[in-house]
Amino acid sequence: MSTLPTISVSMGDPGGVGPEVLIRALAENGRRRSARFQIHGSARVMHEAAEVCGVDPFWWQVDARSPLASTLVAHRVVLMDTDPQMKDEGVELRSPRKADRISGAMSYHWVMQAIEDTMRPAGDPLRSNAIVTGPINKLAWSMAGKNYPGHTELIAKTLKQRRFAMMFVGDKLRVVLATVHIALNDIRDVLTIGKVHTAIDLGHQACLDLGIKRPRIAVCGLNPHAGEDGLMGDEEQRLIKPAIDLARGAGIRVDGPFPADTIYRPAMEGKFDLVVAMYHDQGLIPIKLLERDLAVNITLGLEDVVRTSPDHGTAFDIAGKGIADPGSMAHAIDLAVKLSSARMRTHVSAMNSQTPS
Amino acid sequence: MSTLPTISVSMGDPGGVGPEVLIRALAENGRRRSARFQIHGSARVMHEAAEVCGVDPFWWQVDARSPLASTLVAHRVVLMDTDPQMKDEGVELRSPRKADRISGAMSYHWVMQAIEDTMRPAGDPLRSNAIVTGPINKLAWSMAGKNYPGHTELIAKTLKQRRFAMMFVGDKLRVVLATVHIALNDIRDVLTIGKVHTAIDLGHQACLDLGIKRPRIAVCGLNPHAGEDGLMGDEEQRLIKPAIDLARGAGIRVDGPFPADTIYRPAMEGKFDLVVAMYHDQGLIPIKLLERDLAVNITLGLEDVVRTSPDHGTAFDIAGKGIADPGSMAHAIDLAVKLSSARMRTHVSAMNSQTPS
Repeated sequence: MSTLPTISVSMGDPGGVGPEVLIRALAENGRRRSARFQIHGSARVMHEAAEVCGVDPFWWQVDARSPLASTLVAHRVVLMDTDPQMKDEGVELRSPRKADRISGAMSYHWVMQAIEDTMRPAGDPLRSNAIVTGPINKLAWSMAGKNYPGHTELIAKTLKQRRFAMMFVGDKLRVVLATVHIALNDIRDVLTIGKVHTAIDLGHQACLDLGIKRPRIAVCGLNPHAGEDGLMGDEEQRLIKPAIDLARGAGIRVDGPFPADTIYRPAMEGKFDLVVAMYHDQGLIPIKLLERDLAVNITLGLEDVVRTSPDHGTAFDIAGKGIADPGSMAHAIDLAVKLSSARMRTHVSAMNSQTPS
Repeated sequence: MSTLPTISVSMGDPGGVGPEVLIRALAENGRRRSARFQIHGSARVMHEAAEVCGVDPFWWQVDARSPLASTLVAHRVVLMDTDPQMKDEGVELRSPRKADRISGAMSYHWVMQAIEDTMRPAGDPLRSNAIVTGPINKLAWSMAGKNYPGHTELIAKTLKQRRFAMMFVGDKLRVVLATVHIALNDIRDVLTIGKVHTAIDLGHQACLDLGIKRPRIAVCGLNPHAGEDGLMGDEEQRLIKPAIDLARGAGIRVDGPFPADTIYRPAMEGKFDLVVAMYHDQGLIPIKLLERDLAVNITLGLEDVVRTSPDHGTAFDIAGKGIADPGSMAHAIDLAVKLSSARMRTHVSAMNSQTPS
């Protein structure tokens, strides 16, 4: 059994900065040695991006349809190229620096290919342990008839996972969201004890996988001042405290609910390893403020599969210039390697513990 | 007509850090020279606080009930002492470092006295232009039978103002809230075009009063990604855009709605002078994260009256030690002076413009 994880990577929108930041992140030898990489994308776009970055192509490339693909697994980085198929089908990838239907269809296809890698049976040489997604454009997906709020929902749906959560890992802050892409006024219909507990539980496991022993977790209230003892809203008593008690009963070190406006500074100063936010902006305002676009977005709860992505978009305005910061993509790859390695160790130790002694 | 404004100050909870930070802020001669100050509080508590701060008392004190009070207006700092009255009534102010009924009743009384100063008829020597409130404890107020979410609501109610808003001014960020102390799930019943427009309009006026010419204002959306064109919630189209259009029609430089998670960094970097947030945590998370407790809370919309306060609480745990940071109180006083001076100039120029030339 190989000790290195296999990471499937989707190149992202061909007109965005995805190809560039991917190439610059993988241009570092140490990172390439940490795992096997299967990139789903376009060879032409990757070559153009390598040129603007001043990087010599470091990947083996193969027609994504070719049966040869599975014989290339010995190579560190393999590009599963869809250009030949597009050529055969007369589809022209123009990759403009804006939302485009064909770009959307292809970036969607590459993500689906990456997901399929993780669904291959054990023993399949192309089976992968993690997905790293390059930035896509949601409007382009929608122009191609693919309507998803984002990667997270698509991946969770394809892998038939209903118990998942979105986590953001930055230098100063780690945040998990209990709810994500819903209208603020729909939170009342969606937030449940289960949702809050799932966020705490999956966030706790992710911290362990990241090497944090006995992580300390802070949970935000939903209302101003965490409701001030029921004065402004009862969700703290009705939903959040029961979820915290449930997690505590299972031995998780978790406190709250805390007023969301005052909990992030102590968390930033190291008093907590993780903050559980109740909704999108409550978690993302501090992440974007403290980490710019350099945090990593992790999808938790996908059982054996790890999924990470940079926390930035296609940045069409600076794409193709070789100036995009590869920090977030590099961090996303490193975390995918770290988390999937931790999962593999857990599996091995679970298997060993089942062996009669 | 005096060119200096008169500032009424409530000492805050006698067991908290209010007296200390007030004394240390006013210990600076320059600040004392910028206005006249009428402090409502307890002489004994003020003397104790002066001692722990190592500051010689710099105020004239007078029995708050005394008709002499109004003859002391020539002095820079006058303490309207309620100790004699309490003694007469057999009320003992023990000022413990925790929520206390008598402390609550007195800190409430001092705020009411400060409010009354602003309601005195023009020409009354004790009439004041602004209120600076020291930190109170809400539980202590409630123990004393005074149930208000905070100073803002009490002052607005007493002054019969229905069109008001809460603003936070820090070093890096200025934020106005469209809604404040309500449960998150009640926002749907409370947020209106009028509320959003009021926040923009009053925030704009406050920026002008602060000396910012042609302030650039950013308005947050209510939903994640500002609703993404109606995909998640329709308040952006239904309420926020119309309010922005209304303000724009009146010549205000205002843009949005922007996704709340990505607007604060450009604002912090100076691309906007003011951010209008739709609800408490959306505005307070960035304020507390960037400014700690050093921002100033300003109540907007009180017509002739300016009200500011430090953005921190009683901090019972460090009170009485002379170590509390007076920065926020000092800044609150300076802004009260600046804003009320601006208001006085506006009035004078309005009066002059009415004078036949």
